[in-house]
Amino acid sequence: MAVDAHDPQAVADFCAAAMWTDDHASRQLGMTIDRVGPGTAELSMTVTREMTNGHGTAHGGCIFALADSAFAFACNSHGPRAVAAQCHVAYLRPGRPGDRLVATAVEVTREGRSSIYDVHVRCAGAVVAEFRGHARQIGGSWLDGVAAQE
Amino acid sequence: MAVDAHDPQAVADFCAAAMWTDDHASRQLGMTIDRVGPGTAELSMTVTREMTNGHGTAHGGCIFALADSAFAFACNSHGPRAVAAQCHVAYLRPGRPGDRLVATAVEVTREGRSSIYDVHVRCAGAVVAEFRGHARQIGGSWLDGVAAQE
Amino acid sequence: MAVDAHDPQAVADFCAAAMWTDDHASRQLGMTIDRVGPGTAELSMTVTREMTNGHGTAHGGCIFALADSAFAFACNSHGPRAVAAQCHVAYLRPGRPGDRLVATAVEVTREGRSSIYDVHVRCAGAVVAEFRGHARQIGGSWLDGVAAQE
Amino acid sequence: MAVDAHDPQAVADFCAAAMWTDDHASRQLGMTIDRVGPGTAELSMTVTREMTNGHGTAHGGCIFALADSAFAFACNSHGPRAVAAQCHVAYLRPGRPGDRLVATAVEVTREGRSSIYDVHVRCAGAVVAEFRGHARQIGGSWLDGVAAQE
Repeated sequence: MAVDAHDPQAVADFCAAAMWTDDHASRQLGMTIDRVGPGTAELSMTVTREMTNGHGTAHGGCIFALADSAFAFACNSHGPRAVAAQCHVAYLRPGRPGDRLVATAVEVTREGRSSIYDVHVRCAGAVVAEFRGHARQIGGSWLDGVAAQE
Repeated sequence: MAVDAHDPQAVADFCAAAMWTDDHASRQLGMTIDRVGPGTAELSMTVTREMTNGHGTAHGGCIFALADSAFAFACNSHGPRAVAAQCHVAYLRPGRPGDRLVATAVEVTREGRSSIYDVHVRCAGAVVAEFRGHARQIGGSWLDGVAAQE
Repeated sequence: MAVDAHDPQAVADFCAAAMWTDDHASRQLGMTIDRVGPGTAELSMTVTREMTNGHGTAHGGCIFALADSAFAFACNSHGPRAVAAQCHVAYLRPGRPGDRLVATAVEVTREGRSSIYDVHVRCAGAVVAEFRGHARQIGGSWLDGVAAQE
Repeated sequence: MAVDAHDPQAVADFCAAAMWTDDHASRQLGMTIDRVGPGTAELSMTVTREMTNGHGTAHGGCIFALADSAFAFACNSHGPRAVAAQCHVAYLRPGRPGDRLVATAVEVTREGRSSIYDVHVRCAGAVVAEFRGHARQIGGSWLDGVAAQE
């Protein structure tokens, strides 16, 4: 297996594929990766009845999980392994069973081992939640042991 | 069915029971309610392999969901229905498959329709995550239509 | 005095001027308004020795105040009076006496009476702090009692 | 000069005194240190007309600065030098000229080089703001070069 380490899009695609293999949680929730790129990711998920809380709306943890996964794919898109250090979420609209939620992560800043990403969660264009995640690198890269493409 | 609206513990127990019935998300994740009280709640959950992410550790969304549920039971413990407006989480230690996570929510402040809760998520006493949630009342009460106990 | 309520830039300019008159705190700290627009504002401030803390760097409160003022001018730029409900700041680099800090606020989302703004604080292009503010309208408008321009 | 490094209260007092000397910002705003202890600090400040914003109430940056200083004295109370990494503040009531604000910082958790503190800002007992600060140690200690007391 090989990847062109000088092609940011190829690196992002490779890291996403490597992460996705073991991302049981995101797959269990029915998420799909719509696209990834250097510092960005878009994932979507349909709210099911199993995701509802005592109010009959999407559990905040499920909306958060979608945003958190988009954040994770975005902050790991450059190669080095990174994890969430802190996150903040604001809920603007409830999610309901059947809603297709789309989470779009964009890079705000990246400095040394730290980075910040904003994730917009929308349903049919309307904002459901705004998420900001702070990541830190933990050492190692998704490209470790991968042959550089010639 | 009846509840003594002047007994804060009875109200908290009643609200928790009413919410739990429809909280498919928390039950799906295997959470248990260890105790609730006026402004407080303690829930626990065991990290399963299905909750792991691409790093092999508990998905941030699953840890968040446990904290968020503890927050939800605490902020709904007084009767009036309340939902999360904003939440912040800091991850201090990774969770691993088999870990039993315990989330303890305590009330920081409650003013009019707004309230703030802190949730500590621990595993065997060590802090896994610190969560702060801001709730707002949405109208209505879990006690609406319930006969007051004589 | 009159303002064209259908010209978003004119409204932003008018609101900024009205707020600035009584903004003793921002003026006391030596801030200048570089530009405002609909949903945006850019303010700058030079770190003085009087703004330093026990570490000899800019007190976090001073950096926050600059970001908060940029946020305030941005979230009040549409006419309705709005105040900060919650704010989050991450410090990436220390500020030092003599540094010229520039805070740029942009609108993330605006829904009903709530809105979210991101503020980037930079010094010579390098990120010093990332700020996110949540505002809510409190009733009334900066345009109340102002003649509409014909 | 000497300090008993095994007496947490003596260490807290010493660190506070060392920091205060150069804390021009806190002194400029008229803050006073009411008390410090291991992991705690209480500071107060009177809102002046120079601290008001365009709404005629205390500028959020001034309320934040008071909370941030209480946080700083608390997170530096153990000896090692620490700075703010991230902070979150929620405003519950406006501050007005003449208000005496009291900020009380308490330690939530301390793990390795990271720590979290909650700061309650009150006026005559009523909550004005709730602040949460995340600190990280930057190397060095306020006790470096100080003779240990025998």
